[in-house]
Amino acid sequence: MSSVLQRRQQLLGDATLFYEDPIQIVKGDGVLLYDEKGKQYIDMYNNVPCVGHANPVVVEAMAKQMSTLNVHSRYLHEGILNYAERLLGLHHADLENIIFACTGTEASEIALMTARIATRGRGIICTDATYHGNSSEVIKMAIAASLGEPANAEFRAIPFPQKYRPLQQGLDEEALCELYLDKIRQAIADFEGNKIPFAGMFVCSIFANEGLPDIPGSFMAKATDIVHAAGGLMIADEVQAGFCRSGDFWGYETTGFKPDIVCMGKPMGNGLPLSAVAASADHVASFRKATRYFNTFASSPLQAAVGMAVLDEIQNRDLLRQSAAVGAYMRNALKRIQADHPSMGDVRGCGLFTGIEWVTEDNQADREGAIAVTNKLKEKGFLLSNAGILKNVIKVRPPLVFEKKHADQFLEAFKEIVKDG
Amino acid sequence: MSSVLQRRQQLLGDATLFYEDPIQIVKGDGVLLYDEKGKQYIDMYNNVPCVGHANPVVVEAMAKQMSTLNVHSRYLHEGILNYAERLLGLHHADLENIIFACTGTEASEIALMTARIATRGRGIICTDATYHGNSSEVIKMAIAASLGEPANAEFRAIPFPQKYRPLQQGLDEEALCELYLDKIRQAIADFEGNKIPFAGMFVCSIFANEGLPDIPGSFMAKATDIVHAAGGLMIADEVQAGFCRSGDFWGYETTGFKPDIVCMGKPMGNGLPLSAVAASADHVASFRKATRYFNTFASSPLQAAVGMAVLDEIQNRDLLRQSAAVGAYMRNALKRIQADHPSMGDVRGCGLFTGIEWVTEDNQADREGAIAVTNKLKEKGFLLSNAGILKNVIKVRPPLVFEKKHADQFLEAFKEIVKDG
Repeated sequence: MSSVLQRRQQLLGDATLFYEDPIQIVKGDGVLLYDEKGKQYIDMYNNVPCVGHANPVVVEAMAKQMSTLNVHSRYLHEGILNYAERLLGLHHADLENIIFACTGTEASEIALMTARIATRGRGIICTDATYHGNSSEVIKMAIAASLGEPANAEFRAIPFPQKYRPLQQGLDEEALCELYLDKIRQAIADFEGNKIPFAGMFVCSIFANEGLPDIPGSFMAKATDIVHAAGGLMIADEVQAGFCRSGDFWGYETTGFKPDIVCMGKPMGNGLPLSAVAASADHVASFRKATRYFNTFASSPLQAAVGMAVLDEIQNRDLLRQSAAVGAYMRNALKRIQADHPSMGDVRGCGLFTGIEWVTEDNQADREGAIAVTNKLKEKGFLLSNAGILKNVIKVRPPLVFEKKHADQFLEAFKEIVKDG
Repeated sequence: MSSVLQRRQQLLGDATLFYEDPIQIVKGDGVLLYDEKGKQYIDMYNNVPCVGHANPVVVEAMAKQMSTLNVHSRYLHEGILNYAERLLGLHHADLENIIFACTGTEASEIALMTARIATRGRGIICTDATYHGNSSEVIKMAIAASLGEPANAEFRAIPFPQKYRPLQQGLDEEALCELYLDKIRQAIADFEGNKIPFAGMFVCSIFANEGLPDIPGSFMAKATDIVHAAGGLMIADEVQAGFCRSGDFWGYETTGFKPDIVCMGKPMGNGLPLSAVAASADHVASFRKATRYFNTFASSPLQAAVGMAVLDEIQNRDLLRQSAAVGAYMRNALKRIQADHPSMGDVRGCGLFTGIEWVTEDNQADREGAIAVTNKLKEKGFLLSNAGILKNVIKVRPPLVFEKKHADQFLEAFKEIVKDG
């Protein structure tokens, strides 16, 4: 064991790490990362530094604001208002107000509370392979997911929609969609039967942790209608899905629905802790009135300045278009490779977010195979990870500044690995 | 209403603000803040920018790290290890491991989970005027506090200890201490009677939100013994109390006890979201094993670099000594003023944290009086706030770089205000 790893265990305990043989990263630049020996990696995992590691525009904005002012939000400051206005301008018009926080977990907490306060309900539908954060309340969704049955009376995990391993084989898309929608209807009926007033449905707009499945096209819009008809609100977790990741600015545009509450996080601050929740003015008003919510580090001039710089970079470097174009280019190339390699069971995704489902010869999930590929790619200088309920999905989620030339280098290395078996 | 305030309400809703007539702050420098018209204020409220607003050493460290690398903690990095080691070196020896997070709420969540996992208990004792954060679970302590009776089976709020308005008049310190300790014993017995296994006691080491009361000297050490004897853990919230605030490095040194779990937050990153929990290696191990806790923005090279710079500044500028000395100087001067002004019911505190309890002629809490003084001080260029269960405590909590000369300016203004009534 390396001395750094040993020291880490002595100080932090057994904190989670990537790779069988963990790597030490000391420097970043755009999509590139470097270890302590100077070895270069192309980063194909990190969505947080969306406009690139060590982005100079972000660093400049951060340093400038930090040397001017950074203070809590109980004084007035125009920076956070300009940022809030710009963010809301990127959303559909019914999202009128913003609540800022620092982490995705905090955004999930706010979204849960907002939905419950607005509906006077408690029951929340999530999926059976989800993760929305790690607080005592938010983690109940992941617990409900992992148990596959009601762990907590107030959360119900339904099977996430997918076409690759559908709940039932041989159905057309419309019929399959109805099957998944029925699971929502059943959960709502179940809440009703248990006298738990319904609050809403909480899902990642593109089901990222579920493994980025292709879903029946009308599922999200119809799910939203069902949730609304039962008096619930639709909560979109855009922490992974948002900020151009999906090829649209928001994942909910890609999957075609209008959420009532949206959580944003990871890429917002390019690494500065920054998250937010957007909702209607009425919903935010009832949340603020009931909670008097205040977050010491949030809505700060620093968050605003850095958040603005990230949006500037996305706009000035045309990263929305690039995410869609480079992502599609890479997926098409991967699909061509797939034709000769049956272990690549499915290649899917949207924008700069691709999942490659690794399978055995009889089409079973091949977790070990997927992990082996990820470790081999790391040796060749490409950082990725594994995802999905069965951990057999290779997760390709590079910074938005990832270009065609990086995709070509990756494809070359990937081809060699699949060729060698 | 100012146009900035109007715009804020349109974008953020009715988010909390200070002062009857809120102020707009545009610039900070050390203990000084400036509004949009160039008016200068001496900041006597903000503990977060502990080494001063726009501190150049912190800005430099932040910019340097951000232009080198900032990435999540699933790769190895020595920065966070050096910072963890240095932080642990400042604590008592039984605190062996650290879990980093971003906000005080997140630290409270981790501490609650750690205590519950380690003890296999659920019941938590808090005080009746507390606040440890705003997540669904952590806020239950504030709810238990505000209701004054069991709101949630798993939380019990006991009366916070104090000598100024004691539970019973006419007792000597020893007897008063026992009276408060009995409340802990009763809560533990009540948990037992309700078959709720006991997990521990969660308190701010100096009872900051309670209004910074003078407490019976042996209370915290004896409370810790009682909690331990019942199989619980003692959780010290040092989010406000720590980092030299109390005149010692940690509040638990000031009030004389050895907590099993410590939460740190606000001043750690001088405004960068940064918090942490320290506990024994065994307790951290059981927490990590049970939760596989991961926090995207925490344990990062950025948090480490900024946290180190803050500790450097504290050490190089001798701010621990300054906090104790300037705080004592100011409290002594305030006590001299108090002799002629009976509305100053009590002057108390530790280090750079002073509470002035404002009272009516018949010694009742004078909330309006305290708020009026705070607003008048704001007009004169001194920013403070109100605290305590009755909101009649003027809270004096400046950045650690607050010096004797600033105290003298404040005392001059304060004298004029109390003279004018």
